[in-house]
Amino acid sequence: MIRSFAFTTQGRVHSRNIERFLMPTLLADTNLFLWVDLEKPTADEARAVLEEVFHFHPLSIEDCLAASASPKIEEYTPKEDDRFTPYLFIVIHAVDYSRKDGRFATTELDFFLGKNFLVTFHEAPMRSVTVVEERALSGTMNIARAPDRVAHSLLDTLVDNYKPALDELSLEIADLETTALQKHSKQTLTKIVQIKKEVLHLRQIIGPQREVLSRFAQGEFKLVRPHLVPYFRDVYDALFHIDELAQGYMDSLTGILQVYLNMSSNQTGEVVKLLTLITVITTPLMMIGTWYGMNFHDMPELSWKHGYIAAAAFTLISTLLTYWYFKMKKWF
Amino acid sequence: MIRSFAFTTQGRVHSRNIERFLMPTLLADTNLFLWVDLEKPTADEARAVLEEVFHFHPLSIEDCLAASASPKIEEYTPKEDDRFTPYLFIVIHAVDYSRKDGRFATTELDFFLGKNFLVTFHEAPMRSVTVVEERALSGTMNIARAPDRVAHSLLDTLVDNYKPALDELSLEIADLETTALQKHSKQTLTKIVQIKKEVLHLRQIIGPQREVLSRFAQGEFKLVRPHLVPYFRDVYDALFHIDELAQGYMDSLTGILQVYLNMSSNQTGEVVKLLTLITVITTPLMMIGTWYGMNFHDMPELSWKHGYIAAAAFTLISTLLTYWYFKMKKWF
Amino acid sequence: MIRSFAFTTQGRVHSRNIERFLMPTLLADTNLFLWVDLEKPTADEARAVLEEVFHFHPLSIEDCLAASASPKIEEYTPKEDDRFTPYLFIVIHAVDYSRKDGRFATTELDFFLGKNFLVTFHEAPMRSVTVVEERALSGTMNIARAPDRVAHSLLDTLVDNYKPALDELSLEIADLETTALQKHSKQTLTKIVQIKKEVLHLRQIIGPQREVLSRFAQGEFKLVRPHLVPYFRDVYDALFHIDELAQGYMDSLTGILQVYLNMSSNQTGEVVKLLTLITVITTPLMMIGTWYGMNFHDMPELSWKHGYIAAAAFTLISTLLTYWYFKMKKWF
Amino acid sequence: MIRSFAFTTQGRVHSRNIERFLMPTLLADTNLFLWVDLEKPTADEARAVLEEVFHFHPLSIEDCLAASASPKIEEYTPKEDDRFTPYLFIVIHAVDYSRKDGRFATTELDFFLGKNFLVTFHEAPMRSVTVVEERALSGTMNIARAPDRVAHSLLDTLVDNYKPALDELSLEIADLETTALQKHSKQTLTKIVQIKKEVLHLRQIIGPQREVLSRFAQGEFKLVRPHLVPYFRDVYDALFHIDELAQGYMDSLTGILQVYLNMSSNQTGEVVKLLTLITVITTPLMMIGTWYGMNFHDMPELSWKHGYIAAAAFTLISTLLTYWYFKMKKWF
Amino acid sequence: MIRSFAFTTQGRVHSRNIERFLMPTLLADTNLFLWVDLEKPTADEARAVLEEVFHFHPLSIEDCLAASASPKIEEYTPKEDDRFTPYLFIVIHAVDYSRKDGRFATTELDFFLGKNFLVTFHEAPMRSVTVVEERALSGTMNIARAPDRVAHSLLDTLVDNYKPALDELSLEIADLETTALQKHSKQTLTKIVQIKKEVLHLRQIIGPQREVLSRFAQGEFKLVRPHLVPYFRDVYDALFHIDELAQGYMDSLTGILQVYLNMSSNQTGEVVKLLTLITVITTPLMMIGTWYGMNFHDMPELSWKHGYIAAAAFTLISTLLTYWYFKMKKWF
Repeated sequence: MIRSFAFTTQGRVHSRNIERFLMPTLLADTNLFLWVDLEKPTADEARAVLEEVFHFHPLSIEDCLAASASPKIEEYTPKEDDRFTPYLFIVIHAVDYSRKDGRFATTELDFFLGKNFLVTFHEAPMRSVTVVEERALSGTMNIARAPDRVAHSLLDTLVDNYKPALDELSLEIADLETTALQKHSKQTLTKIVQIKKEVLHLRQIIGPQREVLSRFAQGEFKLVRPHLVPYFRDVYDALFHIDELAQGYMDSLTGILQVYLNMSSNQTGEVVKLLTLITVITTPLMMIGTWYGMNFHDMPELSWKHGYIAAAAFTLISTLLTYWYFKMKKWF
Repeated sequence: MIRSFAFTTQGRVHSRNIERFLMPTLLADTNLFLWVDLEKPTADEARAVLEEVFHFHPLSIEDCLAASASPKIEEYTPKEDDRFTPYLFIVIHAVDYSRKDGRFATTELDFFLGKNFLVTFHEAPMRSVTVVEERALSGTMNIARAPDRVAHSLLDTLVDNYKPALDELSLEIADLETTALQKHSKQTLTKIVQIKKEVLHLRQIIGPQREVLSRFAQGEFKLVRPHLVPYFRDVYDALFHIDELAQGYMDSLTGILQVYLNMSSNQTGEVVKLLTLITVITTPLMMIGTWYGMNFHDMPELSWKHGYIAAAAFTLISTLLTYWYFKMKKWF
Repeated sequence: MIRSFAFTTQGRVHSRNIERFLMPTLLADTNLFLWVDLEKPTADEARAVLEEVFHFHPLSIEDCLAASASPKIEEYTPKEDDRFTPYLFIVIHAVDYSRKDGRFATTELDFFLGKNFLVTFHEAPMRSVTVVEERALSGTMNIARAPDRVAHSLLDTLVDNYKPALDELSLEIADLETTALQKHSKQTLTKIVQIKKEVLHLRQIIGPQREVLSRFAQGEFKLVRPHLVPYFRDVYDALFHIDELAQGYMDSLTGILQVYLNMSSNQTGEVVKLLTLITVITTPLMMIGTWYGMNFHDMPELSWKHGYIAAAAFTLISTLLTYWYFKMKKWF
Repeated sequence: MIRSFAFTTQGRVHSRNIERFLMPTLLADTNLFLWVDLEKPTADEARAVLEEVFHFHPLSIEDCLAASASPKIEEYTPKEDDRFTPYLFIVIHAVDYSRKDGRFATTELDFFLGKNFLVTFHEAPMRSVTVVEERALSGTMNIARAPDRVAHSLLDTLVDNYKPALDELSLEIADLETTALQKHSKQTLTKIVQIKKEVLHLRQIIGPQREVLSRFAQGEFKLVRPHLVPYFRDVYDALFHIDELAQGYMDSLTGILQVYLNMSSNQTGEVVKLLTLITVITTPLMMIGTWYGMNFHDMPELSWKHGYIAAAAFTLISTLLTYWYFKMKKWF
Repeated sequence: MIRSFAFTTQGRVHSRNIERFLMPTLLADTNLFLWVDLEKPTADEARAVLEEVFHFHPLSIEDCLAASASPKIEEYTPKEDDRFTPYLFIVIHAVDYSRKDGRFATTELDFFLGKNFLVTFHEAPMRSVTVVEERALSGTMNIARAPDRVAHSLLDTLVDNYKPALDELSLEIADLETTALQKHSKQTLTKIVQIKKEVLHLRQIIGPQREVLSRFAQGEFKLVRPHLVPYFRDVYDALFHIDELAQGYMDSLTGILQVYLNMSSNQTGEVVKLLTLITVITTPLMMIGTWYGMNFHDMPELSWKHGYIAAAAFTLISTLLTYWYFKMKKWF
């Protein structure tokens, strides 16, 4: 699906759902800002817009259409033969975390940001894009609708959408924290290891993203007007904070794993303790019982008057002493 | 609550509790230094001061009012449309450690530091701020009351206040060190892991703070007069020292954990030793006892004259030999 | 085997299988681009071409002929005595992974890249080289056949060929993930450790390769025309992505190892549990049985009317209580 | 105690034990070099010298008098109001290791190094200072007695004094290496962990020290004459070597810990082996013994002529076979 | 022993075994290159040459004569008073590995490299030096005998000599790999830990060496003619490759250690399994045997006609079922 909008420099909506053949005309008008949003376009549609309307560099088109690219930012400046105007090509990832799968799903959003155009490309409907489009159209955004401004809004809402995913994750980790202390099952360990992997994955996603945003935040690009730089820095700070949270999650998970593994070996320790306890406590009785079960003809104790009582008493006292000894040693 | 003070360049108190509508006038007077302290203001009050009096950049206001921001420092230089004078926006965290929770609580302090004004913002009463205000008013500070000087005092007392928190933590770790060697309980492990997480957290708090202060210490900002730079370097050194302490705590905790985990497996080892000892020592008696408990009609030993004595003697001697053997091997 | 091609600057094939004595002539013609591919040449052939035709620096020839060199790139600029024109010497590694051996095999590809020549050297037939040669000859490459362009194609297909190796590895790791949870054998551990080593090895291979490509991607070399730089950056990105995958594999393997090791100690725990269970459950019977097996003349219980029944009942009830107790404690 | 010396530029001793009121006069004479050594001075004495004679910057005085500062170097250049001449303020730590406590004690030495003065400050008598003073007075130092030269001598002897501490430590570690293999006690582990902490501590001490010295070694300071720079580089190299040794100790300790922990679990393994061995070897006898201890009226074996012999023989043979089996499996 | 050679700029040998008093004369002749090789000289000899002939800086002489210095390179440029010409002082280490000790022995080689002289200093005969001397004298080196060229040859053969040491080490590690899987002895662990320490040591040796060579490889020194730089880069690459190998060994050793430690705990697991198996399998017999060993007067089963057969049958069947159950669970 292709959505397209043209805004005047005064920020009013000039036209919508622009026919493809009209785009080059609007694009040539420097008083207009053209935003084309390609949502799951067919390969033909995509090529028609990216190649024929905007004449983007083949490499950026290839990256855009490829299944998965790492977050990055590249500046394209036209050489003599090139028919495009300077633009930034940005790949950025939105994340979504579903507790059911226990996996982070990332959705890729590609930007082509030019002086008076913005092309966004994504393979599935994206909340961030929808929200920004609505805001742009409804006029609640009281700043001029310029490409760099819209790009900032997109990045901002996109990074904001990391929060719910992290909250989900945080709940999951809190759950694990209690489970790890209570139940010792293979599932718990697999879960800890898997979430750890996911957080590592998340940090791997954030890493290049931070780099992309830090370049915006340092005002490296001429296509972004200087007075917008603090806004991009703000987005960068938000991402930095998310990375810090993720680092905190890693530390928590390492702690949980340590507790879990110790609990596991502790439990074996407890079982061995019980075994030893039972063995030790029954030892006096077993010894006396076995000994006087012998069939020697001449075992004087057997015919003593109080022999049996004595044996029973001895057994009882030894057992109690043993019991008391372990009690004193705080074995149970 | 809003507290406000105006000082003359000679360091005398010019006025206190200034009405909001008067602030712009005082601010325009370059012979005066205006300090506005916003302690848990309502959103309206805050906006009134930050926006209408000082015309700060919307992003710094947003960061200031937001629930939690990472420590950072940002330099705002006015663009043509902006109505503010150049200022530094600083977010810094005070820490507090309560042994009851075993958690570091951080309180955020936001600064707006300009040529002749200082705006401080915090959500709860802060000891550092109170102390510096008292000193500024009571005249015990014998240096001119300039914004950069007051900012230094605030940072200095704030970093000084890290010490008690670290002392608490240090006591806690010393406690753990003895506990880990004596008692083996799930609580000890959980405690070690949790404090480790807290120290990691503390280092995460200190990290960006150090960066902020190192920029001051390098004299990067024009709003801070050069002769004050060594003082900021001093605060930086104090924070550096705290970070080193925290690193030392981490090492201690890693050591404690290792000792604890080894003790845990050692204990199981001891229990198994006991089990083995009991089994081995009772073995001769059990064998003899069981053997001569058989009911074969024709067991010559049973009717031997000294059969029973011989059996008893053999049992006793074997047991003693076993006992002596383990004693020699230093099992107990 | 030596294959050689000359292309005109218009991209047409000028000649093939050029006699060695003709090469210097063609090389002198700046309107031609000469590509010599040395596939497992004899030492004499190699020296003849590298020394006598191209007069390369002895060190780069030595590196080229040596058994194994690390990936690297070196720029050779002629000094007064030297008879070569400026060239880049590049060593790059293709990887292949065979599941049978569980090992990454690397094949070395050496390039000499000059203004109007390209010499490739490899000890075995390489898919990347064959593919690029075919494309160059068949005319499907619609861009001018220049040395830097062909070098890019070679690097591109070479990095593309990492993918199948990684896919193999990925399958292997997925297999291990399930095996680690099910079967506990020495082989599994050896396998995990071995694959971990291989992934480390892969990352060690990629490391210097990334460095080589990053220098291309930054447009450091004058021999590569500026408009090709984005294409090299693309190859760099692909390699970067592969490195990220490898990092992900490392994390997975670390997780698998942790699960495996825990399973191992868990299993021992389970066995000890069973031992304890059996011991505890048989304890009542053994105690009663041993006790009433004593031969004291005067054991009143033995002659009680319901003595046996009572003993049996007591045994049964104790056993059942024990059983119920452990059942309740979720031991089985 | 305050010791003070004045040397002429020719290296002769001009005066000793200079009255405080005379110091400013001597200091003003650029043909003299004044060395004031403050050994555990009272706060008043210290302030009198540092403030009133030398007019040092208040911050460096504060750092000097404070209980503990990290090693550092700071360059103070006078601003218009300041009455001091340019100087370097250096904090450096001597270490001492006592095997009794098993702890590194650090002693702080503070320097104020100016064009023609040197002020040293320490809280306890220091061997390095005494040695250098003696050498300076006795005339065995055949180079001119200049402040930078004396500073070098102080740093040199101070770093030299690290050696004995490291030798002590090295002996301790060698001891541990043998203990860890022989005796398994809680003390050994605690010792390993504690020494590891100490070595970490030592490296933490060396870290900032190295930084201080590397700045000298790079000839960063104008107060140090260029031809002395190689000498400072030499001190730096010595410290670098010490750091390498400490790194080596860390690796040794990690190895010792691994051996120790493995020994610990090995020992439990051995105990379990013994338990199993005893159980297995006594099993035939216990089975036969228990079985023929049954009181069934009709057990034909009991009345067989050679029943008892057969049972004994069977028991003996089974036991021997079991014994032989384990012997063959190399269990003992 | 002092060996000395003078070569003409044409590469012919001018003189050998030069008397010490002649050296300054030869040194003054810029058409000659003087190489003095000090092999285990007495302190007097060494000082005579280094101080009186070459007038080297006292610090480099001290470093040279000191027992052990870290690899380093220092550039000495004469100050006004100095009588030496500019030279490089280089400390480099050769390694040797003897399988008997399992230790890397390092031999130190010190160079003084000047415009027309080279002084080498070593405490023991060194293969690299001997080889280079022979080559220089026999005329097989067809390049002019210049100091920088000879220095390169020395470094080259020295780094080449690392290979055999590494091959020894590699064999050792391969041995360990098999041993670790087969035999579980304290010796194996000690060996693994010790070799790991050695490899760490090797990397510590290589580290500063790489730094020294990388400075050569970057053409930092004017005393090395530019056209020799690629040759030094080649030596650097060789060392880099060795470091990579060492890194690979570390990874292997970590893997071996993991396998070993797991095998150790696995073995205990196996033993416990056996114990449990024996206990469980003998349980039915022990229960029946003990039960019917009771002496109750009225135990009806004892007088049943087929009581004994029934008991025996029950025992046998239970045992077989247990046996089958564990067989099915793949316990053995």
